[in-house]
Amino acid sequence: MGNDNSLEVSCPLPALEQRTIALAHGGGGRLMQELIRRTFLPAFDNVWLAQLHDGAVFPVDAGKLALTTDSYVVRPLCFPGGDIGSLSVYGTVNDLAMCGAKPLYLSAGFILEEGLPLETLARVVTSMAEAAQAAGVAVVTGDTKVVDHGKGDGIFINTAGVGLVLRGATVTPQRVRPGDVILLSGDLGRHGLAVLSVREGLAFASDIRSDSAPVHGVVEDLFSSGIEVHCLRDLTRGGLASALNEIAMAARVGMTVEDRSIPVSEPVRGACELLGLDPLYVANEGRFVAFVPESEAHKALTVMRRHEVSHQAAIIGRVTESDEPAVVLTTVLATRRFLDLLSGEQLPRIC
Amino acid sequence: MGNDNSLEVSCPLPALEQRTIALAHGGGGRLMQELIRRTFLPAFDNVWLAQLHDGAVFPVDAGKLALTTDSYVVRPLCFPGGDIGSLSVYGTVNDLAMCGAKPLYLSAGFILEEGLPLETLARVVTSMAEAAQAAGVAVVTGDTKVVDHGKGDGIFINTAGVGLVLRGATVTPQRVRPGDVILLSGDLGRHGLAVLSVREGLAFASDIRSDSAPVHGVVEDLFSSGIEVHCLRDLTRGGLASALNEIAMAARVGMTVEDRSIPVSEPVRGACELLGLDPLYVANEGRFVAFVPESEAHKALTVMRRHEVSHQAAIIGRVTESDEPAVVLTTVLATRRFLDLLSGEQLPRIC
Repeated sequence: MGNDNSLEVSCPLPALEQRTIALAHGGGGRLMQELIRRTFLPAFDNVWLAQLHDGAVFPVDAGKLALTTDSYVVRPLCFPGGDIGSLSVYGTVNDLAMCGAKPLYLSAGFILEEGLPLETLARVVTSMAEAAQAAGVAVVTGDTKVVDHGKGDGIFINTAGVGLVLRGATVTPQRVRPGDVILLSGDLGRHGLAVLSVREGLAFASDIRSDSAPVHGVVEDLFSSGIEVHCLRDLTRGGLASALNEIAMAARVGMTVEDRSIPVSEPVRGACELLGLDPLYVANEGRFVAFVPESEAHKALTVMRRHEVSHQAAIIGRVTESDEPAVVLTTVLATRRFLDLLSGEQLPRIC
Repeated sequence: MGNDNSLEVSCPLPALEQRTIALAHGGGGRLMQELIRRTFLPAFDNVWLAQLHDGAVFPVDAGKLALTTDSYVVRPLCFPGGDIGSLSVYGTVNDLAMCGAKPLYLSAGFILEEGLPLETLARVVTSMAEAAQAAGVAVVTGDTKVVDHGKGDGIFINTAGVGLVLRGATVTPQRVRPGDVILLSGDLGRHGLAVLSVREGLAFASDIRSDSAPVHGVVEDLFSSGIEVHCLRDLTRGGLASALNEIAMAARVGMTVEDRSIPVSEPVRGACELLGLDPLYVANEGRFVAFVPESEAHKALTVMRRHEVSHQAAIIGRVTESDEPAVVLTTVLATRRFLDLLSGEQLPRIC
């Protein structure tokens, strides 16, 4: 059984110091070990990862856990206000928060394209590690695969997250009922336009920064303040309009929202008008809606406004009885129109 | 705020019946909803997924949990004995088993390439669902992203898994100690060569089927039989040689393994000789090594052999004291050679 692998592909004798990702970095051999020890372990630095085992083991108390996953394919990798690294942490942290859970542990799966500069990967990993520290979560286990040049696009990241459901939290679309008040955590459209501005070189939009940020602190405060929250939903792909439609369909209710109560910054409004985009459909990465009984609405608003990430929180509408799940927007001119699900693709690869 | 999105890309008016994946399938709108409701929900069919929320919530008792993740980029998507769908379930189930855990819940993150036939996706998802049922796990939450044609390669899948660590299981490389016996669960090299045979059209290897299979049943039996297991490791990328090296480095021990005790089938041995490959470095997807104290070795062997997936289990070597972590292979001719970590890439995109 000789080890002279005549079928070796792409880098038979890779130098340890080579500066780009090779197929062998995903091959389970020496280069993958180097990548793990030089790039991933020092950045994520925790006892679980340091065991270098097939997974991470941690103790839990009896209770309810939440599990969520998202892959990140945003293009370009860096944009005003964030990058794929921080996005891959905050996005999954926020999905856990939307389950009423305190985020605890993340996994990280990298799909790297052959030829990717190692320095780019290191920058992204550093950004992930900083975001994880800021959000109080640990990246405890991971995986790296490498695909041939031209079969990927630099870096794709998947993170899955495990969180502990907060005491008293039962957060599902099915709990939303007529009479519930809809609260929005802040202004819309910044993430989508920030990514678009660098991708398309739109100078007029260059002062728009992504809203990408973790929101779990707000959610924890809502529950520790004893507020009855029926449902939470972050406003990523498809924006506010799609999130409301999804919940209306799942809960079999109607909704009315008021155009003028929805915060949209002037630069975003202007850019959307120029580009023919609707900010209600543009992706956000640090915004969510909360559905609460009317009696809780003002208390919830007060809690949300004391956090920087949701200081612009506003009541934007109400849940209604309806035979057909439908979301209706009332405008300043008192016209009404249906906010439908997006049928095409507005901004691809935004997250 | 009009919804006439002049920047719509790639499919301004996609027909619901269209037969290939469009960017809009990852856009958070109507097409993504259709994909979820028509393809994912019916296949994975469970109460968690049916909630259509940002994550899945499930109760846990106090104890220890394991979390693991793997991305799957195997090419081609189907190979003798499996496909990317079943692989993405069994691979992660096995990683949980290697942590001494009973696999419970999986997440699934899909990165699809624009233009992928919907039927191909449906076949892969059906295979995942069947594999999940066979392994007794539920796919409880998921995510779909679509990348432009030429920026992916059909289907990439990430699965993360959560499992409950079995009573009495403390399975880490650090517990491996001199004197431990090394058990191998079955014959080597079939997965790597099965994938290679279809990729390269190697007729002489066409009767080699992947060993892809879940092994958690064996692991559960080892622990319920009261066997003291110090470490477990599956033999995926880099094969047996890499797995042993990784553990030797983590535990700071040496190992000796005996060439003739390692089962390799005749077709695999023949194909490896022709191709200049070493079966000790070829990837497997249903094989693992177990490290147990000498006093437990024969009992462990008996337990392993009563499972179909490990009926060829064998004692292949021992852990030794060593100043340098090193794995030594003794051959039939009584020669000794170091089994080193692979330094290049033997078979890219094998899992």
